[in-house]
Amino acid sequence: MRLAKLREQVLEANLDLVRRGLVLSTFGNASGVARKEGLIVIKPSGVPYERMKPKDLVVTDLHGKTVEGALRPSSDLPTHAALYRAFPAIGGIAHTHSEYATAWAQARKPIPCFGTTHADYFHGPIPLTDVMTDDEINGEYEANTGTVIIRAFKGMDPMAVPAVLVANHGPFAWGADPQKAAENAWMLEAAARMAFLTVAVNANAVALGKTLHDRHFLRKHGAKAYYGQAKS
Amino acid sequence: MRLAKLREQVLEANLDLVRRGLVLSTFGNASGVARKEGLIVIKPSGVPYERMKPKDLVVTDLHGKTVEGALRPSSDLPTHAALYRAFPAIGGIAHTHSEYATAWAQARKPIPCFGTTHADYFHGPIPLTDVMTDDEINGEYEANTGTVIIRAFKGMDPMAVPAVLVANHGPFAWGADPQKAAENAWMLEAAARMAFLTVAVNANAVALGKTLHDRHFLRKHGAKAYYGQAKS
Amino acid sequence: MRLAKLREQVLEANLDLVRRGLVLSTFGNASGVARKEGLIVIKPSGVPYERMKPKDLVVTDLHGKTVEGALRPSSDLPTHAALYRAFPAIGGIAHTHSEYATAWAQARKPIPCFGTTHADYFHGPIPLTDVMTDDEINGEYEANTGTVIIRAFKGMDPMAVPAVLVANHGPFAWGADPQKAAENAWMLEAAARMAFLTVAVNANAVALGKTLHDRHFLRKHGAKAYYGQAKS
Amino acid sequence: MRLAKLREQVLEANLDLVRRGLVLSTFGNASGVARKEGLIVIKPSGVPYERMKPKDLVVTDLHGKTVEGALRPSSDLPTHAALYRAFPAIGGIAHTHSEYATAWAQARKPIPCFGTTHADYFHGPIPLTDVMTDDEINGEYEANTGTVIIRAFKGMDPMAVPAVLVANHGPFAWGADPQKAAENAWMLEAAARMAFLTVAVNANAVALGKTLHDRHFLRKHGAKAYYGQAKS
Repeated sequence: MRLAKLREQVLEANLDLVRRGLVLSTFGNASGVARKEGLIVIKPSGVPYERMKPKDLVVTDLHGKTVEGALRPSSDLPTHAALYRAFPAIGGIAHTHSEYATAWAQARKPIPCFGTTHADYFHGPIPLTDVMTDDEINGEYEANTGTVIIRAFKGMDPMAVPAVLVANHGPFAWGADPQKAAENAWMLEAAARMAFLTVAVNANAVALGKTLHDRHFLRKHGAKAYYGQAKS
Repeated sequence: MRLAKLREQVLEANLDLVRRGLVLSTFGNASGVARKEGLIVIKPSGVPYERMKPKDLVVTDLHGKTVEGALRPSSDLPTHAALYRAFPAIGGIAHTHSEYATAWAQARKPIPCFGTTHADYFHGPIPLTDVMTDDEINGEYEANTGTVIIRAFKGMDPMAVPAVLVANHGPFAWGADPQKAAENAWMLEAAARMAFLTVAVNANAVALGKTLHDRHFLRKHGAKAYYGQAKS
Repeated sequence: MRLAKLREQVLEANLDLVRRGLVLSTFGNASGVARKEGLIVIKPSGVPYERMKPKDLVVTDLHGKTVEGALRPSSDLPTHAALYRAFPAIGGIAHTHSEYATAWAQARKPIPCFGTTHADYFHGPIPLTDVMTDDEINGEYEANTGTVIIRAFKGMDPMAVPAVLVANHGPFAWGADPQKAAENAWMLEAAARMAFLTVAVNANAVALGKTLHDRHFLRKHGAKAYYGQAKS
Repeated sequence: MRLAKLREQVLEANLDLVRRGLVLSTFGNASGVARKEGLIVIKPSGVPYERMKPKDLVVTDLHGKTVEGALRPSSDLPTHAALYRAFPAIGGIAHTHSEYATAWAQARKPIPCFGTTHADYFHGPIPLTDVMTDDEINGEYEANTGTVIIRAFKGMDPMAVPAVLVANHGPFAWGADPQKAAENAWMLEAAARMAFLTVAVNANAVALGKTLHDRHFLRKHGAKAYYGQAKS
């Protein structure tokens, strides 16, 4: 059963966020999508991680309508659904309030790429969304959070930079599956922490050059990757 | 027995402060109030947390006079009592020297609301008390600590912003019961830490707008709350 | 046997430094003094904490001459001995390279008293020694480290401010016995960390006033102390 | 078997990096060299530390050609090999992305020696390499990383300052054997962290004087060392 496996993957991705120290209290949620079935599996709202079981996860369609599950889905579901509809290549999403990434979001600053750690995972700076307008907040707030994220990626490949900072809120990360989304949320926090230290040491620090950025990202991604053990 | 249950709640709230890393040495205390009985239950002074039992807690009236208990109450009791008398809606109080909140108190700066994490718990910036005068310090110091806190909330609802920074001292937080007070002390520290990082990344960071602040606070509090599982 | 008990106290004080995260690698040592016997008990040099036994500790006279023990004493022994000779009220000394206190020492800045946490333990700012001269370094370096500390306390009561920062080196703390010395080293690090955060939040932060400083220090020390449980 | 022992040492050095919190995800690798045999033992690429066995390590010649081992060696092998060829006194190398050292590398700043903790291990500031040129990056990138490190040590003894920061990348450390390399990577991170705090407390902090620097380094290294227990 594909959906049963996805439930387990989504549960593990939620627990990965906790194990890596990215979740403050209940501020965090991960989801996954079954593209063929057009179904999203997401964390229920406000349920403690330590007691969560695969059956507690909520299954919805791509417009956030519950298909299976007795619990209310995460209140951020409309954001996840908007991203799944707009970014067809992504298979999982992770949202946290991890503290350094959130600080950059609160400071309303994109995270520059200062080093190869960042470049290994993100092919460019981490973009910052527009500050949401009153109309966007007063309307379908969570869906509009998706709208401002999608707008921030206009003309960009969301798989090349699989994370974003929502202004005055915090980070969303994604990936090919829920595990990759949780891993990208983790690496985003590490990049955010080291970028914080970098500007503290040198207020005029500059981003690394394009050649080095390309070299590191493409060492791990795409046809010419040569990092890790060969998959064949 | 309502009081027996309150003893357990107050003990757990004190331990919550320790488990969440908010207490340095013995700098921390939580209390609860039984409104009908007019009784306060509070941590004894300078007793190690790991050995504390419900029976070690001290029971006093709302003016801090001991009613039950062989040990001396926390030396901050007169502050707690003043707050219970002035703020009828609160059921528990937590005082810590958690390091980031204390740093803001020592810096004599209120904590601006830079993001939704803060807005989810506190409907405004965390206020800073006046610096206490020599007369206030030389007089009933701990009771006067209550006085300056109450003055900082003149015209404000203490349940909308359930925490304060006492200048050159540290934070007090409160809530509907001792557990909520301890949770608010925890979220205050998280907000203080992320606000610290925010101004370090951007010295000109601005608070989030009123519309977003309202949206987040009211998503979790009041009649239109829609976060978490329905209680009914 | 008084000396046997002192050996145990000194071993525990050394382990306290490790348990509280104040020791980097082997950078740390605690000692105690038996005043009547005129003997110092101190940690051996470069021995791992986890394997240290009371019998491994080295016993010396007040001039650092070994009286008992097969191992070489800590290379900082001449500093300890100088302090025991100059400060008759102290019974224990703890030296660490705890990171925030060391940062202040490296920055060549005394630690201002910004709040009541500091004031509860130290009745004034934490002094900084003079930068040592080439002659002081090329001569009896460790003994001269004691000399510059003693000079920094000229006209001051070392029990009122039981810690110091040695410029470009790190902190020494002391107290009535080895346990108190280790506790003061711990509280010094906490004060150093919060002072660091305070100046980062507000570069113009000012020290707390004398009245509040006195109130807190004297609440815990001296004839009118009223914190904790009565000793009688 | 010398090589069997070296495999164990290299495995332990890799685990030391993890135990000391210097490794983010799989960003870290340690190696050792058997000088007589002209063989390098190095971590395989992208293999989880917790499952690594001595037999998983890869053995290569000094030009990075695999001699034993079924797995692909760490992609940083050409950097290690270049250093072993250029620095005949070193017996082990450790590479991490430890966060404070990486921040200095990203900030393109050498780490000044502000205190005796640094001076005990490194006889001078930690040098920063040149920013690599596009040709160096597009060519044999990992081997050229070795080239810029070697260039940074022109006229210097690599055993006197056993670490370097590769600009926009991170630290490499080395030593007489793999354990010493891992220890130096650890002390480098500590020095980087305390140097960060030092400049944050005092933007105009100055390095410690040459006499004190010499005294501390030579207290632990060379013919006149007197720290620790005598080896004879």
